[in-house]
Amino acid sequence: MENLIRYAEKFFDEVEIALYRSRDVSANVELNEISMASTRSGAVTIIRGIKDKRLGLAIVDSDEESRVKEAIEQAAKMAKLNSPDERWVSLPEPGKYREGPKPNYELKEASPDKLVEMLGKAIKLAREKDEHVVVAGGEGGVSWEERHIINSHGIDVFQEGGAAFFFVELVGRKGDVVTPGIFDFDARRDLNLDVEGVVERAVRKVGWAYSVKASRNEEVPVILGPWAIAGLFSYALLPAFSGERLVKETTPLAGKVGERIASDVITLYDDPFHELAIEQTIADGEGVPTRKNVLIEEGTFRGFVWDNYWAKVYGTESTGNGKRDLRSGGINIGFHNVVIERGRRSLEDMIAEIERGYFVDGFQGAHSSNPDNGNFAVTANPAFLIEDGEVVGSSVFLIAGNVYELLKQASEVSKEQTVMPFMNTMITPFIKFENVKIAGK
Amino acid sequence: MENLIRYAEKFFDEVEIALYRSRDVSANVELNEISMASTRSGAVTIIRGIKDKRLGLAIVDSDEESRVKEAIEQAAKMAKLNSPDERWVSLPEPGKYREGPKPNYELKEASPDKLVEMLGKAIKLAREKDEHVVVAGGEGGVSWEERHIINSHGIDVFQEGGAAFFFVELVGRKGDVVTPGIFDFDARRDLNLDVEGVVERAVRKVGWAYSVKASRNEEVPVILGPWAIAGLFSYALLPAFSGERLVKETTPLAGKVGERIASDVITLYDDPFHELAIEQTIADGEGVPTRKNVLIEEGTFRGFVWDNYWAKVYGTESTGNGKRDLRSGGINIGFHNVVIERGRRSLEDMIAEIERGYFVDGFQGAHSSNPDNGNFAVTANPAFLIEDGEVVGSSVFLIAGNVYELLKQASEVSKEQTVMPFMNTMITPFIKFENVKIAGK
Repeated sequence: MENLIRYAEKFFDEVEIALYRSRDVSANVELNEISMASTRSGAVTIIRGIKDKRLGLAIVDSDEESRVKEAIEQAAKMAKLNSPDERWVSLPEPGKYREGPKPNYELKEASPDKLVEMLGKAIKLAREKDEHVVVAGGEGGVSWEERHIINSHGIDVFQEGGAAFFFVELVGRKGDVVTPGIFDFDARRDLNLDVEGVVERAVRKVGWAYSVKASRNEEVPVILGPWAIAGLFSYALLPAFSGERLVKETTPLAGKVGERIASDVITLYDDPFHELAIEQTIADGEGVPTRKNVLIEEGTFRGFVWDNYWAKVYGTESTGNGKRDLRSGGINIGFHNVVIERGRRSLEDMIAEIERGYFVDGFQGAHSSNPDNGNFAVTANPAFLIEDGEVVGSSVFLIAGNVYELLKQASEVSKEQTVMPFMNTMITPFIKFENVKIAGK
Repeated sequence: MENLIRYAEKFFDEVEIALYRSRDVSANVELNEISMASTRSGAVTIIRGIKDKRLGLAIVDSDEESRVKEAIEQAAKMAKLNSPDERWVSLPEPGKYREGPKPNYELKEASPDKLVEMLGKAIKLAREKDEHVVVAGGEGGVSWEERHIINSHGIDVFQEGGAAFFFVELVGRKGDVVTPGIFDFDARRDLNLDVEGVVERAVRKVGWAYSVKASRNEEVPVILGPWAIAGLFSYALLPAFSGERLVKETTPLAGKVGERIASDVITLYDDPFHELAIEQTIADGEGVPTRKNVLIEEGTFRGFVWDNYWAKVYGTESTGNGKRDLRSGGINIGFHNVVIERGRRSLEDMIAEIERGYFVDGFQGAHSSNPDNGNFAVTANPAFLIEDGEVVGSSVFLIAGNVYELLKQASEVSKEQTVMPFMNTMITPFIKFENVKIAGK
């Protein structure tokens, strides 16, 4: 890589080469059968060079020297074609990295056998626990990635690591009732995925779903589960913490650092080194050291996150939140591992206190939320009706509201904390919100 | 490739190797500026082998012999892990191919300069035609693909070709009115993209959108444009023509061959050799010769389309509609180039006859349509109100209905026919539907 940077420097004022090698194995379930096991490996190299404030970008699906050199030349051509970006300052300088986590090499050579075995076990377990259950879908996967970021200012950081994930989707059919698809999942940095736990939680939810209850317009306490929280927050809330949006004036959090934006049970931060994190990274996509960034501390908004470009435009420092988009090659502001702090009591205890309310497992339609103001309109499904401290059946209803109003209604977080590996990676407890207006469907 | 098939035959009863090489150049616009020009190239090889009716699949992002051999071995391991598929018959046998189109090699070596120039011209033109217009987004792109499909039954087909596309998104701001994003586009097999036409059509629609008209509940004639048609039909209608759905009993068209399912102005077929097709292909993703498949002929349903697997399960022949999913490696039933036959009169003449009605440019929410029964619920936006034969402003409204009922309400198709390069590639006229129930918003 060193000699490639030297080669690239001939064309650019400053230049970055980012190399990603990956290996993915996965196995799938469809209708109680293992339908496919597959493996995929590849390499992508991205060149980002700047000449006279003009950006040149090229991507090549290879790590071979000759092809990377071609890509460097291509990027140089691009730079000539682009307009100069007068706001451009510079690529990042080297920083001080924490000691990296020890990669779990068991994941590098993982064979799909293990995944097929887990899925087989999950199918057997689910059908033993409930004969009316069909394992409609599911997947087990292991991914391994090697990342090497090097730039002409001296950044040179190599990282490698892997993660495993597992999910099932169950559907129950009993009498005339067909339940909605019920999901549960696990993700971790080793192969000890909690197959029994995933199946047990999913089967329990299917059991609740056999009894269908009509919903109505009312104002009730609602407990959101990790999947619902990750969906809603990923689209309605998290984009608002982006420094780019502060510069572009498209975040409702502008000017609100130090202000209360949530109830004091809510503490939210991005922490790539959290023990449950599935990707423990010491440097972001442009080689800037990562750190723990507190976003909300006991209800108070603490600040924005930045990548190198927008931080320099604004006159601050990158918080290590430059995330590489491997499709476009560009850097966007993003999160490594969003954590919501957990509480003291269990979900069960929280449910036991509710006279009438709901537990929402998933939201549909969260992607059409508006992060400019936090407005959202979602369908709660699967959702479960709680009466006199017990789940009594499943329901579907609508919630239209504003995520900042909702955050102020939070009254408790559970001691259980789950890692949600989809969209933004989030580690979150169950959260109870008071007086939520719902619309029956 | 020949020697790789010989190598793979040691592990499998039958085996297929599919190699895809691609090169993409593109240039983007953001807020009146060319923001990025980039280039991307790569190779993907997919191994699909069958041993004792067990499928083994492996994907490797490379075309190097040593890595393809590794993938073959990996696929062999996968086959051992998968359950046997008792319905498996065989991979396809060689067929007779039509003479291929002559590839336009100008596209193979296309430089982004040309695209940057086009986008620059589009920005200039748009702002000259309407000073209140912002070119919010846009892209020009050229892609080139080489595909080589070879299997152990003797299929050995190589194809290469390219296409170019171009779109702009305009937003108009005049007084208090900010129009929705207005799109227009072109796509073809050479670089003579119709920049003027794209800009002219988009600016005209922006002009209409400055005058905002309230919508109301009513039953009116509605003309759908190509973008709206492609969106709605891709999700609500086209999946129903899949033979897989016939086998799985999830298509409302089962048992309806020869029946009238649309008004007689509707003739719809899949034709990879249509003159406007952007990918003229002689063989599908598993090497089966392509052909013109008529789906609806003057309102009458003519039949389903098939890939090799589902055709053999059902006891019929592949229609050459096996499409490769380069992400999963699998083959799905799909389309090459869906054409809706055009009519005699122009869009302008069709609008001139409408006393009160709408012209709908795009639909939001079409992806949540249900292809099992054709039900849909979409938001028409951008949509334009027609009064006394003229467009008088823009509106937003809802249509909830059933695509088969809608097809029977079709009364005329325009002589203009546009290629829509997104989702399924569709070549479609504007279509007028009578007595469409709309809900004001």
